[in-house]
Amino acid sequence: MDRKARIGGACLHTGTIPSKTLREAILYLSGFQQRSFYGKDYALKDTISLADLAFRVNTVMAREGEVVRAQLKRNGVALFDGTARFVDDRTLEVETPERPERVQAEHVLIACGTRPARDASIPFDGERVLDTDQLGQARGMPRELIVVGAGVIGVEYASMFTALGVRVTLIEQRPTILDFVDHEIVESLTYCMRQRGTVFRLGEKVVSVRIAENGRVIAELESGKQVSGDTLLYAVGRQTNADLLDLGTVNLAADPRGRIPVDQNFRTSVDHIYAAGDVIGFPALASTSMEQGRLAVSHMFGHMHQYRPELLPYGIYTVPEISMVGRTEQELTARKIPYEFGIARYSELAKSQMLGADVGLLKVLFDPRSLRVLGVHAIGDHATEVIHIGQAVLAFEGTMEYFRDTVFNYPTLAEAYKVAGLDGLNKVGAV
Amino acid sequence: MDRKARIGGACLHTGTIPSKTLREAILYLSGFQQRSFYGKDYALKDTISLADLAFRVNTVMAREGEVVRAQLKRNGVALFDGTARFVDDRTLEVETPERPERVQAEHVLIACGTRPARDASIPFDGERVLDTDQLGQARGMPRELIVVGAGVIGVEYASMFTALGVRVTLIEQRPTILDFVDHEIVESLTYCMRQRGTVFRLGEKVVSVRIAENGRVIAELESGKQVSGDTLLYAVGRQTNADLLDLGTVNLAADPRGRIPVDQNFRTSVDHIYAAGDVIGFPALASTSMEQGRLAVSHMFGHMHQYRPELLPYGIYTVPEISMVGRTEQELTARKIPYEFGIARYSELAKSQMLGADVGLLKVLFDPRSLRVLGVHAIGDHATEVIHIGQAVLAFEGTMEYFRDTVFNYPTLAEAYKVAGLDGLNKVGAV
Repeated sequence: MDRKARIGGACLHTGTIPSKTLREAILYLSGFQQRSFYGKDYALKDTISLADLAFRVNTVMAREGEVVRAQLKRNGVALFDGTARFVDDRTLEVETPERPERVQAEHVLIACGTRPARDASIPFDGERVLDTDQLGQARGMPRELIVVGAGVIGVEYASMFTALGVRVTLIEQRPTILDFVDHEIVESLTYCMRQRGTVFRLGEKVVSVRIAENGRVIAELESGKQVSGDTLLYAVGRQTNADLLDLGTVNLAADPRGRIPVDQNFRTSVDHIYAAGDVIGFPALASTSMEQGRLAVSHMFGHMHQYRPELLPYGIYTVPEISMVGRTEQELTARKIPYEFGIARYSELAKSQMLGADVGLLKVLFDPRSLRVLGVHAIGDHATEVIHIGQAVLAFEGTMEYFRDTVFNYPTLAEAYKVAGLDGLNKVGAV
Repeated sequence: MDRKARIGGACLHTGTIPSKTLREAILYLSGFQQRSFYGKDYALKDTISLADLAFRVNTVMAREGEVVRAQLKRNGVALFDGTARFVDDRTLEVETPERPERVQAEHVLIACGTRPARDASIPFDGERVLDTDQLGQARGMPRELIVVGAGVIGVEYASMFTALGVRVTLIEQRPTILDFVDHEIVESLTYCMRQRGTVFRLGEKVVSVRIAENGRVIAELESGKQVSGDTLLYAVGRQTNADLLDLGTVNLAADPRGRIPVDQNFRTSVDHIYAAGDVIGFPALASTSMEQGRLAVSHMFGHMHQYRPELLPYGIYTVPEISMVGRTEQELTARKIPYEFGIARYSELAKSQMLGADVGLLKVLFDPRSLRVLGVHAIGDHATEVIHIGQAVLAFEGTMEYFRDTVFNYPTLAEAYKVAGLDGLNKVGAV
């Protein structure tokens, strides 16, 4: 069952799909990559309207919605549109548009997802002060955008609007961003965003937001600074929809942030009730959520699969995009595990020159004795695609010699692995 | 030493780099991918001039030339610009622009490459009738282009010009094209090219080419047909530059097609003389040539590396692009090796919808008993990049279960492996 006749949840309707489609549209319509050929002020459409962007987003959402519905239908899945809540531990009541329906099952998988967390003191008006679900409704294209919250979602939107030429100020209470990502990669991202005009206000707390009489949005910071713009995007976390489920009826309880605790098989404290996706917390990515769902259902029906969280890739759809798999330098250092690294800069690759993509790097961390690959970190075009090459080598416990001895198509960005491999092996005298 | 002050050879000056840069420029300027969003007549620039294309090609060639020169310099490689020939088996004479220079060495690596094969009966004029080296000199953008020869190079150019909206006729003497590629992939390519107006004349031999009084180029076929256009591109193979080397002096001989025979270590019949790249023949790709050079030099100096030709990827930069690694269906059938396959169509992937790329498929062949991966075949956006994921699984002798159990970033085209993996395992009841 699903709420609001919106099969696909946040991923399809307000999260991954719209934001990543928006990103592709921005990259194309802004001529972003092409600037290294045609000068930094080049843009495909001088005035990009939200309608241009929305057209593409709506097209993809409609198509993807069809794909999901067709897959469910093909597999004989009965579908109830509405908000569900537990009546007992094997019965749910769904408030459909027509009438309440009761559904019974031997197993239940909770995948109710999240919605933006809202601070009651923020004057959301759906036009100038928006949460991330409202972004599609904004009327005009912002010229000066304030983004509050530099989690993955906040940084993704901030970098996209920066690519569009919007003047962005990003405010975050913590002194650093994306702490789980390799620091060198994060520095590359912030460098790129600053080059294009983003102002970072890190370690700064927003104490109030108001809309002034002239229509400007003003954010007051605890430090006494004022930040103003024509639009403010509030991207401070999300809360789960678990509160709508009447969990108490089945003796389940969410934690203070609304997350439902599960074991390694995604089972809650009730044996036949499972939970997966954003509602169980980090990493709350579309990719991991799908896998959790698959593993939970496999476990319900007695199929056991191996879950190797150390092989999970992370994709951050900033501009330029970031991806990683395995260990970071900071993690290895904290654990006192010695490592060496091999690096490739996109500027050395023929393919990235052809694409007009001059920013990017790939870094491979490895054990200097065994040469085993420990982690792969990338920023730049198609980083979220090429990371899977390193992921496979990591999964099969391969060494840096794999990259040395493998022939890569030329020209490709994947060649970066060869460059990084040779660089790393050179460092330990093992070429 | 290198001829014509052109470090980098055919790859940099007339082959890979210009043709692949041209391709990226065409894909972008023609708005090719965006047509599924904006309608089939959408083009970024209604009239794309050769100057637009040449600008980008020249930019990349200049940059890449700098990269190659810098790398040589950094590694202390002395460089002689000119045509070299053997004086004795350890001495070469180079005709530099100033004076002949003699160079002596204990080991020699021949990597003299190829040039387009020219048929004396074809009236090349560098404007209307061109070989592939002359393409950059053509004055106007063709409207109706005849491509003679449907090898990799001919098909790549034919598909690029088709993407630009040029009416292309492709003539090939053999009845089929790209025989080493999976037949289903080739059919997808020809289907796409036909949809966009390419006319294939396969099993047809060109008996004469002439320029008519009205300036039209006319190709007469043995079957009696006439094909006419404003431009003809002659892409029938390449001949090696080995004839310039005075190979007889060192008792080496090229075969009738100018290729120098080598052993598995890329050594010629003279112990300390090696050869690599186009001059030794198939596959004559930039990627494989670089690797051959590296392996030859390693062998000279006593370092042994493993060369696993069964893991070589092939990249064909058509529109859409093609890539493959491992066995084909036709090869497995001929060898009576049973196999099953898993397939993913790009139309099922969220990422390809976002990119506006609706054509594409990924096919993974595997052993139905051991589930071992045998070959990977792809057509579509970034096929030349994502093939390397399958290549790694193949190299580590992985099974289809790897794709089932791996989490891929969402949205990516790499997800196709998950879809193909589940499809394949379903077929053999092993999900």
